[in-house]
Amino acid sequence: MLSTVGDVELGIGLIFEHGRTVHARSEVVTFDGTAVSRITFAALADRVGQLANALRALGIEGDDRVGTLMFNRQEHQEAYFAIPCMGAVMHTLNFRLHPDQFTYVVNHADNRVIIFEGFLAPVLLAVRDRLPNVRALIMVGEAPEGVTVPPDVLRYEDLLAAQPTTFEWPTIAERNAAAICYTSGTTGDPKGVVYSHRSMYLHALGFLANFEVSQEDRILAIVPMFHVNAWGLPYAAWFTGADLLMPARFLQAEPLCRFLALEPPTMSAGVPTVWADVLRFSETHDVDFSRLNQIIVGGSAVPVSLIENFQQRHDVKIIQAWGMTETSPLGAIAVPPRHTPVADQLRYRAKTGRPMAGVSLRIVDEDAKVLPNDGVAVGELQAYGPWVTSSYLHDPAPEKFQTDERGRVWLRTGDVASIDAEWYVQITDRAKDVIKSGGEWISSVDLENALMGHPAIAEAAVVAVPDAKWDERPMACIVARDGATVTPAELAAFLDGRVAKWWIPERWTFIAEVPKTSTLKFDKKVLRARHAAGELAVTDITA
Amino acid sequence: MLSTVGDVELGIGLIFEHGRTVHARSEVVTFDGTAVSRITFAALADRVGQLANALRALGIEGDDRVGTLMFNRQEHQEAYFAIPCMGAVMHTLNFRLHPDQFTYVVNHADNRVIIFEGFLAPVLLAVRDRLPNVRALIMVGEAPEGVTVPPDVLRYEDLLAAQPTTFEWPTIAERNAAAICYTSGTTGDPKGVVYSHRSMYLHALGFLANFEVSQEDRILAIVPMFHVNAWGLPYAAWFTGADLLMPARFLQAEPLCRFLALEPPTMSAGVPTVWADVLRFSETHDVDFSRLNQIIVGGSAVPVSLIENFQQRHDVKIIQAWGMTETSPLGAIAVPPRHTPVADQLRYRAKTGRPMAGVSLRIVDEDAKVLPNDGVAVGELQAYGPWVTSSYLHDPAPEKFQTDERGRVWLRTGDVASIDAEWYVQITDRAKDVIKSGGEWISSVDLENALMGHPAIAEAAVVAVPDAKWDERPMACIVARDGATVTPAELAAFLDGRVAKWWIPERWTFIAEVPKTSTLKFDKKVLRARHAAGELAVTDITA
Repeated sequence: MLSTVGDVELGIGLIFEHGRTVHARSEVVTFDGTAVSRITFAALADRVGQLANALRALGIEGDDRVGTLMFNRQEHQEAYFAIPCMGAVMHTLNFRLHPDQFTYVVNHADNRVIIFEGFLAPVLLAVRDRLPNVRALIMVGEAPEGVTVPPDVLRYEDLLAAQPTTFEWPTIAERNAAAICYTSGTTGDPKGVVYSHRSMYLHALGFLANFEVSQEDRILAIVPMFHVNAWGLPYAAWFTGADLLMPARFLQAEPLCRFLALEPPTMSAGVPTVWADVLRFSETHDVDFSRLNQIIVGGSAVPVSLIENFQQRHDVKIIQAWGMTETSPLGAIAVPPRHTPVADQLRYRAKTGRPMAGVSLRIVDEDAKVLPNDGVAVGELQAYGPWVTSSYLHDPAPEKFQTDERGRVWLRTGDVASIDAEWYVQITDRAKDVIKSGGEWISSVDLENALMGHPAIAEAAVVAVPDAKWDERPMACIVARDGATVTPAELAAFLDGRVAKWWIPERWTFIAEVPKTSTLKFDKKVLRARHAAGELAVTDITA
Repeated sequence: MLSTVGDVELGIGLIFEHGRTVHARSEVVTFDGTAVSRITFAALADRVGQLANALRALGIEGDDRVGTLMFNRQEHQEAYFAIPCMGAVMHTLNFRLHPDQFTYVVNHADNRVIIFEGFLAPVLLAVRDRLPNVRALIMVGEAPEGVTVPPDVLRYEDLLAAQPTTFEWPTIAERNAAAICYTSGTTGDPKGVVYSHRSMYLHALGFLANFEVSQEDRILAIVPMFHVNAWGLPYAAWFTGADLLMPARFLQAEPLCRFLALEPPTMSAGVPTVWADVLRFSETHDVDFSRLNQIIVGGSAVPVSLIENFQQRHDVKIIQAWGMTETSPLGAIAVPPRHTPVADQLRYRAKTGRPMAGVSLRIVDEDAKVLPNDGVAVGELQAYGPWVTSSYLHDPAPEKFQTDERGRVWLRTGDVASIDAEWYVQITDRAKDVIKSGGEWISSVDLENALMGHPAIAEAAVVAVPDAKWDERPMACIVARDGATVTPAELAAFLDGRVAKWWIPERWTFIAEVPKTSTLKFDKKVLRARHAAGELAVTDITA
């Protein structure tokens, strides 16, 4: 028996229409480093219509791909609606990619037009000759002084000004592509994940169902819009009528705190390193966090000390969330169990999180057998749900997926984790970063987390290094805070009681900074390579 | 270009699995008039498995329909999962239906098994001979004393006890039927709306996205589970881990307040009349509302005085919501615009509501032309969205739908409404209840709302009656509060200044109670018929 409910195609168009009308007066506010510009959802929607008309005039038809190379700003939000709602496919480009990878992803996704921010002109112009199918470049704002912009580069505002604000929005089949994001590709070429209109719609509803967010919120969107859809903020905020506060490229603690003073947010989202910087900055500067209620932090494990300090000093709740490009990205959220007293919440908040409503998670062993949720068994984390990918663009990659007995396709996340009886997932490592010492696993994430609680430490990365006796042992790579001095022996003593005794590293190295990937995660591959090449000065405290 | 995101069938099974695991310790609590019984989601899920096995053993296969005839109780929640998750279709039956209508809907939906509550045995046994395709009856609990239960009626607990707790849950195509609910059929035969697994899943996510509800909540579910899925509470609460507090048949103010004292809720949902009763009861009894934050009220227009009194006396927020069987039912929610000071919120809370994220609303004139949102134009309200029906069971009913220029099918709600520039809908009447006086519309809803603010009035219904001069005029049917006396002249004076002068009724009648439909809405058809038959004593204050 079929339902009598109508066949409504889920999609970004429904979100666009809702925010444009019901939340017409909500705002997108963009920071230019000094002042802000603001626009209502209703006025922005008119510009979305203009942009769609402009792209159509440039020959964008069907599911042509349109790239964006921008920080978080109003024009990026415009592209987030115009491109998918006209039926085209948005490809968000990460300016931090190596030029070879940048060229690869633009060509692999077959981009036809790229909308870029003037400040990032050098990134794009440097490889332009290697992008044969890109027929038009559209620049937002101005290029930095001294950068010559070729005369055929189109100007965003000129294009929009020439177009009407209304557009005949088509009805789009819900499984059609809406947007593409590539994985960071730390091993091999980046892989493209193609989100559908359906998955984006469900992810936005899922965001609102899982987080406490409403029209009363003003959301400071620090997580970049080129990084897995800014974790869904652009669509979720628009759907519920929350203001979007866009910091553009001003992501260092000092300008960010100036923006925060101009437009106090109630909520924010970003990677741990940004918030660690802001916290440090607030120790010596007057930063007003009084209206900030919660910060969603993800992208890498959140140090306990960060959660603790924000809670105790500023009464700001850090909510750790887990996800990846392949999961749109929301997958898990570290909300403590119901009715947990505030004093007991920290140990839950410090975990990777519980599966959010809409996503199923499990761990499997090396034979693909499902492991128990006992908090002890450790295996590869797998994810299933209506916004989880089950292949890659032009690359089915069967080794990345596992089909269960009911025919459901689970994503192999590449994360190694345990799950406890209350369904809290704890990721102990990326599969490629695990440390196996004497046949037993040591969690680099736990060690880093413990080390970052030390007041002299700015950053700590722990990697596996070969060991004659134990096969592998952890090596700690420490970035000391400015002006602080600390010895390996002191740090080893600090770890004593915080982690198992046999986990405590013997080898220590002090470095200027931890190398990062294009999405600002610790790049341990580089650390291991440097160590193998003998480039790191290592102290062995047992020696 | 197709998305790489996997084809996950949305459905109630995903909700069941999530609550069963992630929210294993949340509870369903059922009141028996004196004490409560409680069960965790995990333990209830085991019984869901047993029920599915029992139904299979009774021959329920494929999409066979299984009826439920129960108040809100644990066993009803079990049926809410077991029936749709095994692939069968749940048909929730309203015991207040006339026996002819009851028989009609059971046979029209072709029910094969009915699970009923012992207390309601008389309703079912009275018509049993007229239900030829119903092959098994399963009774929960005991029948009232004096009612003879035939020996072939099965016992719910016996059936479950004989079955294993695990079941091979099938994967169900998302557009397949999950549940059926019939409209109340005040004109003609009831019509069946068939919800899909997809629409139920989306509605549950939409509930959580639009209301402030979380695992910290304990929800007193007063709206019956036989009345449009209890507005989505059973699935939304399970998905987010909120406790469900089930009052069974104890819905009068006195036992309800005893339940409230035993298990204080943070949130509740029900029709206005129940809350008006509770409020009146609380004037003379000690009722503790201190943990109750919000009450979702819908089903008919909410009197302003109810909102005001709950807010002022008990600091409880009444949130008016609008929907109907055809909309699953969530459609609009009367949340004030962002940043509205509490003192100014009442006029928004008193409206029908704004479209909720997921649902589109519009008004059209008699020529099906879309009317402006200016707060003045009045037309038929239409709804569109992924949980809105576009036909009825065995009855396409094209006259109930309108297809727009993009091919989208809008439901004609039968409500007459205006929409203002901020997108607040105000329903002025059911289309069949409108009063057209001298060519101009008078809103019976507004008149009733104003009258219910008078301290001497318990209930007020306003209906159109023929008038020689104006074609139609409003007549007020008043139920006075116990012991209160008031005259038509006093009430007319009370209305002066609260509504337009020419709206004030000339004709007044005092009645013992307002006749209600099977879903407890005012049945104005009956009032008009009684008036036409000369059964009402009418005072004409102009005479």
